[in-house]
Amino acid sequence: MTLLDVQNVSYSYDGIVNVLADVSFSVEEGTITGLVGPNGSGKSTLIKNIFDLVRLQSGSLRIGGHPHDSPEAKTLGMYLSSNDYLPEFLTAREYLTLMGRLFGVAADHAEAEELFRRFSMEGRYDHLIEDFSHGMRKKTQLVSSLVLRRPLTVIDETLNGIDLEALHLSEREFRRVRDEGRSIVLCTHDFAVLERLADRIVFLDLGQVVCDRPTQELVAAHGSVTTMVFDHLGSDER
Amino acid sequence: MTLLDVQNVSYSYDGIVNVLADVSFSVEEGTITGLVGPNGSGKSTLIKNIFDLVRLQSGSLRIGGHPHDSPEAKTLGMYLSSNDYLPEFLTAREYLTLMGRLFGVAADHAEAEELFRRFSMEGRYDHLIEDFSHGMRKKTQLVSSLVLRRPLTVIDETLNGIDLEALHLSEREFRRVRDEGRSIVLCTHDFAVLERLADRIVFLDLGQVVCDRPTQELVAAHGSVTTMVFDHLGSDER
Amino acid sequence: MTLLDVQNVSYSYDGIVNVLADVSFSVEEGTITGLVGPNGSGKSTLIKNIFDLVRLQSGSLRIGGHPHDSPEAKTLGMYLSSNDYLPEFLTAREYLTLMGRLFGVAADHAEAEELFRRFSMEGRYDHLIEDFSHGMRKKTQLVSSLVLRRPLTVIDETLNGIDLEALHLSEREFRRVRDEGRSIVLCTHDFAVLERLADRIVFLDLGQVVCDRPTQELVAAHGSVTTMVFDHLGSDER
Amino acid sequence: MTLLDVQNVSYSYDGIVNVLADVSFSVEEGTITGLVGPNGSGKSTLIKNIFDLVRLQSGSLRIGGHPHDSPEAKTLGMYLSSNDYLPEFLTAREYLTLMGRLFGVAADHAEAEELFRRFSMEGRYDHLIEDFSHGMRKKTQLVSSLVLRRPLTVIDETLNGIDLEALHLSEREFRRVRDEGRSIVLCTHDFAVLERLADRIVFLDLGQVVCDRPTQELVAAHGSVTTMVFDHLGSDER
Repeated sequence: MTLLDVQNVSYSYDGIVNVLADVSFSVEEGTITGLVGPNGSGKSTLIKNIFDLVRLQSGSLRIGGHPHDSPEAKTLGMYLSSNDYLPEFLTAREYLTLMGRLFGVAADHAEAEELFRRFSMEGRYDHLIEDFSHGMRKKTQLVSSLVLRRPLTVIDETLNGIDLEALHLSEREFRRVRDEGRSIVLCTHDFAVLERLADRIVFLDLGQVVCDRPTQELVAAHGSVTTMVFDHLGSDER
Repeated sequence: MTLLDVQNVSYSYDGIVNVLADVSFSVEEGTITGLVGPNGSGKSTLIKNIFDLVRLQSGSLRIGGHPHDSPEAKTLGMYLSSNDYLPEFLTAREYLTLMGRLFGVAADHAEAEELFRRFSMEGRYDHLIEDFSHGMRKKTQLVSSLVLRRPLTVIDETLNGIDLEALHLSEREFRRVRDEGRSIVLCTHDFAVLERLADRIVFLDLGQVVCDRPTQELVAAHGSVTTMVFDHLGSDER
Repeated sequence: MTLLDVQNVSYSYDGIVNVLADVSFSVEEGTITGLVGPNGSGKSTLIKNIFDLVRLQSGSLRIGGHPHDSPEAKTLGMYLSSNDYLPEFLTAREYLTLMGRLFGVAADHAEAEELFRRFSMEGRYDHLIEDFSHGMRKKTQLVSSLVLRRPLTVIDETLNGIDLEALHLSEREFRRVRDEGRSIVLCTHDFAVLERLADRIVFLDLGQVVCDRPTQELVAAHGSVTTMVFDHLGSDER
Repeated sequence: MTLLDVQNVSYSYDGIVNVLADVSFSVEEGTITGLVGPNGSGKSTLIKNIFDLVRLQSGSLRIGGHPHDSPEAKTLGMYLSSNDYLPEFLTAREYLTLMGRLFGVAADHAEAEELFRRFSMEGRYDHLIEDFSHGMRKKTQLVSSLVLRRPLTVIDETLNGIDLEALHLSEREFRRVRDEGRSIVLCTHDFAVLERLADRIVFLDLGQVVCDRPTQELVAAHGSVTTMVFDHLGSDER
């Protein structure tokens, strides 16, 4: 079943230039989608549209069948931004409690503490986020998404700057999320991660979907995700 | 009329030690209150209680006569944290729009742009917050609070790190806010700012209200806010 | 004896507009000087000139009688910037060792650990700076300056964002530094701190020294540092 | 010729546990080496040893044939840390000038400005670093290393958080650096980048060199860098 449905979404900041021009794609339940886009691809604007952080100008966006700006849709999807702007004056436990309330679910603190342990942050769950390093904040974001179990999670470069073992663990957890029927949209330039994890790759450039294919097909056709993306970035027709 | 009413609030993280022990004070409409507290005073926990970021354990908290965790109370009070964790992927305009929606008011963008100009950030209103310096983020927070006009604004060290002219301008604006009948709670160690602006000073230490007096009276009795605070911190009875 | 001698320093970024126009003042041994300046005052450019971070264009700068760009001068003065850009991959101990080597002195680690304890950072001296909060980084900077005992320390808003007890402790330490014959230049907008600590105030605006007087005289003449500064900022002649 | 020679380096923080245990490897001129290591691998301690940020305890380190703590060695190697702790009060031009002075070379500002243009930062070379986003700071670090042309550059996760086009451009520039006979040590978990760029991979775990082979051989043997690394992390013998 389709979990995220993006249909003919266009967006312009000034009414003239389209940052997004008729973008359509969909994310099925129980899948991992890689979303790749250079500077100016509109990827960031697309995410802001999906999460209703800017008002949709044209096209349609549905999460779990609900209009993206409905209360129902808003509890289904979670966004982990690339910037770790967590509320520093809260402890990790308080943060997860608050996020749980936001999504209308109770955070399973025992599970969160177990994940903290496995992410090499044992005993830090009741510490203020203010004392967390950059990498620990990223891992706190990941734990919050794993514990709150939203059907759709968009993870925007959150894997950057975490340690190798946390990356390894995250990949296993993401596969578990997928096997449980939930979906992840992974925004990253780490093409090795995408080849390992993503069922499908959506490549956005200059506000348009350039490529939307199963990863296996894409790799078979181009040799690697890298080749496809860098060939496109270096090509004349762009 | 009383805008913020804090009555017998206690709070413990472990069920044994009280971080807040029977704290009571109130903030009247059209006033500026200075809230002063050293490390471990419970100031931060008190603010988390007021804004329902942690669950109230005992005592009562009312904003504008409504229980602090009611939807009504939540649109009346705004918290500017000391840490500038603004969403970096939004422009200032998008941020104010979003904050406006949160509080159920339309942000007056023309006023915001005029304040951006006066805060030496002309032409930056449609830029991504990601490109803003620390000082500019603080000023963006201040502008959001000035434009959204909540009856109660708690400003936690937000004046730190802004330039001298922005400080000068902020003070004038805070006086205007007060004259219009709204209230500000100002958390700061800058005692000169407090002596210039605050009608009343609440000094919290070790979870208790040590002093709650009109600034004028306090200065008349102790010579200055500094003397009162530093004498207390250095005293034996503490 | 004069420790820092600034004579007729001018500086222009484009060869046309003077960011600094004939700035002269001096800092005596065993004194605390408050350096106040709004946005665009040239304060930041002045500091960059003193520490030879930009090349002196005209005028003269001497530290301890040596030209400011001589190796001798460079070990005499230390700059604590307003931004806590400490090397995150070092522990506090490694950082102080490195800074000591830079200035040609051995850091007294026992003293540093004792200061860490008094600044509420007991047991953190061998931790990575990466795990320190904003306030802890500021305090680590302060400790490094207290331990390395340079004859001249320029402290640029470093007191912002530290807790009240750390402020109290810092003030006592600064007085000790002064009593031992060393000097501090304190850049801050916290006028109460200046009135408590500074022997002399230098106020810079639009690249010129507007005021350079003993704090007592200045307060006697204007009522407070605030009045002098804000009256000037609001005046027509500016 | 060998540019960086690491021979039998051990290091302990407490005199008991070796964070580095007899580490040896070398970096040849005109090569790109991938340095991979999980949390606790000692990678960070190794880098601090190479750049003389902590004192070498045992073994030998030579850069360009010179002892690593000699003045000669110190101008040959440059370290781009994973944390962008650039001096915020400097402009990018001032920063490059200062770094050039540190290494005893004149920064080619025309080349730097051209790189700024190609890295989508046109016109920002004379702006304060304070106003740069996280990604721009990373790119400023990269530009400084490209312009200052040190024989050895250690790049520690600096490619994290930059945009896709900057990554593409960086890879081309790194190949040019190698073709000109200089060397890069690239610390990253982005294995696709390593497979594209690195001539050789050094994998460190628990203070020891687990693997040190040409990338092609390694990929031929294991299928991919990922497989080698994750198989090792998940193995029982670890």
